[in-house]
Amino acid sequence: MAYNFPVRDVQYLLNHAAGLDRLRDTGVWEDLSDEFLEAVLGEAGKFADNVLAPLNWESDQNGARLENGKVFTTPGFKEAYSQYVEAGWNSVAFPEEYGGQGLPNTVALAVVDAMQGACISFAMGTMLTTAAVKALLAFGSEEQKRLYLEKLVSAEWSGTMNLSEPQAGSDLANIKTKATPNGDGTYNIKGQKIWISYGDHDMAPNIAHLVLARLPDAPEGTRGISMFLVPKFRVGEDGSIGQANDVKIVSIEEKLGQHGSPTCVMAYGDNDECLGTLVGKENEGLRNMFVMMNAARIDVGMQAASVGEAAFQKALEYANDRPQGRKFGVKSGPAVNIFEHPDVRRNLYTMKALTDASKAICFANMVAYDLARNAPDPEVAAAAKEREELLTPLSKAFSSDRALETTNIGIQIHGGMGFVEETGAAQFFRDVRICTIYEGTNGIQGIDLAGRKLGMGKGKLAYDFIEEALANAEAAIASGDDDLKTAGGHLKREAERLKETTAYMVSAMSTNHEAGLAGATPYLDQFGYVAGGHYLLKGALAAGSEDKYLGGRKHIATFYCENLLPRAGGFAPAVMAGEDSVEELDVELLSA
Amino acid sequence: MAYNFPVRDVQYLLNHAAGLDRLRDTGVWEDLSDEFLEAVLGEAGKFADNVLAPLNWESDQNGARLENGKVFTTPGFKEAYSQYVEAGWNSVAFPEEYGGQGLPNTVALAVVDAMQGACISFAMGTMLTTAAVKALLAFGSEEQKRLYLEKLVSAEWSGTMNLSEPQAGSDLANIKTKATPNGDGTYNIKGQKIWISYGDHDMAPNIAHLVLARLPDAPEGTRGISMFLVPKFRVGEDGSIGQANDVKIVSIEEKLGQHGSPTCVMAYGDNDECLGTLVGKENEGLRNMFVMMNAARIDVGMQAASVGEAAFQKALEYANDRPQGRKFGVKSGPAVNIFEHPDVRRNLYTMKALTDASKAICFANMVAYDLARNAPDPEVAAAAKEREELLTPLSKAFSSDRALETTNIGIQIHGGMGFVEETGAAQFFRDVRICTIYEGTNGIQGIDLAGRKLGMGKGKLAYDFIEEALANAEAAIASGDDDLKTAGGHLKREAERLKETTAYMVSAMSTNHEAGLAGATPYLDQFGYVAGGHYLLKGALAAGSEDKYLGGRKHIATFYCENLLPRAGGFAPAVMAGEDSVEELDVELLSA
Repeated sequence: MAYNFPVRDVQYLLNHAAGLDRLRDTGVWEDLSDEFLEAVLGEAGKFADNVLAPLNWESDQNGARLENGKVFTTPGFKEAYSQYVEAGWNSVAFPEEYGGQGLPNTVALAVVDAMQGACISFAMGTMLTTAAVKALLAFGSEEQKRLYLEKLVSAEWSGTMNLSEPQAGSDLANIKTKATPNGDGTYNIKGQKIWISYGDHDMAPNIAHLVLARLPDAPEGTRGISMFLVPKFRVGEDGSIGQANDVKIVSIEEKLGQHGSPTCVMAYGDNDECLGTLVGKENEGLRNMFVMMNAARIDVGMQAASVGEAAFQKALEYANDRPQGRKFGVKSGPAVNIFEHPDVRRNLYTMKALTDASKAICFANMVAYDLARNAPDPEVAAAAKEREELLTPLSKAFSSDRALETTNIGIQIHGGMGFVEETGAAQFFRDVRICTIYEGTNGIQGIDLAGRKLGMGKGKLAYDFIEEALANAEAAIASGDDDLKTAGGHLKREAERLKETTAYMVSAMSTNHEAGLAGATPYLDQFGYVAGGHYLLKGALAAGSEDKYLGGRKHIATFYCENLLPRAGGFAPAVMAGEDSVEELDVELLSA
Repeated sequence: MAYNFPVRDVQYLLNHAAGLDRLRDTGVWEDLSDEFLEAVLGEAGKFADNVLAPLNWESDQNGARLENGKVFTTPGFKEAYSQYVEAGWNSVAFPEEYGGQGLPNTVALAVVDAMQGACISFAMGTMLTTAAVKALLAFGSEEQKRLYLEKLVSAEWSGTMNLSEPQAGSDLANIKTKATPNGDGTYNIKGQKIWISYGDHDMAPNIAHLVLARLPDAPEGTRGISMFLVPKFRVGEDGSIGQANDVKIVSIEEKLGQHGSPTCVMAYGDNDECLGTLVGKENEGLRNMFVMMNAARIDVGMQAASVGEAAFQKALEYANDRPQGRKFGVKSGPAVNIFEHPDVRRNLYTMKALTDASKAICFANMVAYDLARNAPDPEVAAAAKEREELLTPLSKAFSSDRALETTNIGIQIHGGMGFVEETGAAQFFRDVRICTIYEGTNGIQGIDLAGRKLGMGKGKLAYDFIEEALANAEAAIASGDDDLKTAGGHLKREAERLKETTAYMVSAMSTNHEAGLAGATPYLDQFGYVAGGHYLLKGALAAGSEDKYLGGRKHIATFYCENLLPRAGGFAPAVMAGEDSVEELDVELLSA
């Protein structure tokens, strides 16, 4: 199958749905013209389509393997990685000072979109390298920056994030890995880490591991965790690669998907010779890690949506190529392609609408992220920061949940062939399955939304968003376009219903946590559907529909509002069902 | 993991939700006491738990393989199969005349439930043998019955169904396999068939293939298809196994799941020496196959729900064993098991509620099936036949769609471990994926519901059901139990909304097919949720809640009505969105 990164669709979403102009208005990125963007995304698309996509199936069938303590990646990955580094795809949003291109993170996210859709197993690794860059940019010492940043910005070296341990997954308070100061500014690191993506591989000469660990005198719980930079090979004063650093790969996981991405169990300091240096201040490791988490969660949301797009393209191609059945009531004659059947088109439009709604949320999220850090007007920056905070759990959870549905439909459209691995439809379904789990399970995203985000200003972040969605709905209703009017009516109804559940949740979380927590996931679901409708409809209103392409975009947006957005209301009773609804039943009698 | 077939839950569903008493009332099965049922299901459960369940993981990792034209099954399958035959599990609902036990199909379905939950790859094979028995019972000649039935009833020999060909999947009108009469009552069969589950294996000495093929002078399309009985080895007059019958296994598929169930590409008559005999009348093969299809579709629905139960049990065990995090707001102290978190309980209750709702629909469906064939009162039988027809697409599609969700949540509860194959949670998710596809894709179930079933009496089947659900809702509202009252309110609202969409669909299907077909899938979704709520609530009302066990059942029912049933309403706008909503867009511009 040929994957084609949909440059035009992405530009449409960036410009019309996500408000890229607001970044242009900051004056920080004066050269960010449509032509420039098209050129960047066009080149990223070429790389994704021609270099990465052809490796995707191979990455599944011939995934990473561990031999004699070393991880070997899928044949072709190493060469593709060199080209990726050479072309500078890793450095899009990083400072020019370290070899970066100084573009907005939003543009980098569009580049991520291209790569993830082509080969998620490959792009998973570079996503973590960019996270490591962000950590060092924010908290690294001058020495750490001098020795590592340029290498990581280019991705000549790669980076990893080491949080989980067997007893500490979602709950990082339980981290036990130890860091003992040596008195010379270095620390001895000792402990086991799990779920380390690209903990080892053969594509880069060195790897910078960011590791959460405890100092000897650290307080218990989350306030006693520090972050350390632990290289695979020690690095000399001149940046040269030195001796191996007592970092052992214990095993790699046999996973449902993403076979090309090695998920490592790591042993640090088995021989007490693992040296690391402190990143940021002592005992602030978790807090610092969470500073990066927002961007990483948006990345994961986009990653999932990107795979959804790839699954959509594959299903669309099949639907236009597979003759089966005739139109309803026609008893004889040749079979028509299944695209001719209304139910198959419903499936395809659902895939595209969910994918683009997810991408629109992620892009709007990253525009807010960039604005929060770059808007000259402090009020604009503060409002953007709030929007970033609100949208992050939605980007992560809604996109990944919907990508499960999208890739699932992709299999369905293929019929029996979809269940046969060789077809490739099932790979998307397997690969994307982890996205609802890592970087904080979607359950935790729900708690983040209900607990932390609604807690800011008694629901202010949510109410501000809802008012914006209502204004958007009113604009659609008043647009004079019948389709947009219908869509606007759906958005208005669902936004109003979201206001009601928001009031319930704000109250519940401040008076009865258990009731609020019981409603957190359906609230997240409901909110996600409304957010998707808001951004797609905003895009359709802003872009107009004067040509066939824009007409198609408008149709996807109105299809979403009429067919998918109403699901939001279906979650509302569950949001408000209260703690009794999930009371603790006798476990022995739950299945008897 | 230990799987335990939940005998008590199944008896509860049979008695209180599905109305097993109506079968007792026919007088046909006078011995069908609760004690007897418990004994049968208890024994089936023991077999499933102790013999089949331990093979499940092995069936995934060490699936069927093709060597030198022969299929070898997972180690242990052969021995388990012998025990299955020996114990008589295949013969539950078949006539005593052929060695069967003469019990209702509903009881056989409960036995199927036990087996499928333990090891779907194993139980898939015997499910097809029972379908072959039904075909021969209904349409076989005396000779065919004499030579085959006893062997197939016991499952000493196995059976297969051969419908699909590469160009004829959902659309069987395109079948090309040829049957040429030899003048002696036999036919030469020639052609290729695909998706043949257990087309070959090493567990039985002979296999009876039921094959759809065309006679030389057959009309085109579906009216020119006949059914043939084609044995793997020819059978002598005395029932002895003779020479091989020119049936070749071309290949077996590498599938996403059900690795233990060989899915074969079959070549019949490559050497023009494949002999078969006609089953039923010429050119009536497809019609006859569809007579069996109803039962097979209910079986598939149950199969999916059974896997959902297994996934639930595994997730429940994990949730009670995995400490992670503290209660909200508690900053220190030991971690609690994740069952303590409201969101995890929501996930678990959702799994169980969807599973039991699905099973309730399937059991009610099979009670109607049995009643239709056994009720002494012709009016009762006719009404039951209508209910059977209505529920069949719901059993098949709702159960399989929901099992995808259930097994998906099962992975989610395991967190990162869920993505690791060794955990086993992912196997359920992979194995069950095919259930939305085979025996007619769920899209086709939607068309069956909207086209054929609503077409009977201008929606009478649906309206009759809705009135029953409304009466049930009123009874719950009037019950004096607050929880049931709330649940009844939800059922009432959703049943009324279903009445509206039903009126729309009945009208659309008779005046504008495209609009009706565009709404078929969301209508099926909506109907399925309402049906699940109806049967669970009916069960809770009938059973009462006087002890802890019944209280738990009631809670699952009311949880469903408050948290999941409202999703039904979320589909209603999509049902009525009309044909414009899925208008044919320019394919080139759908992803650009």
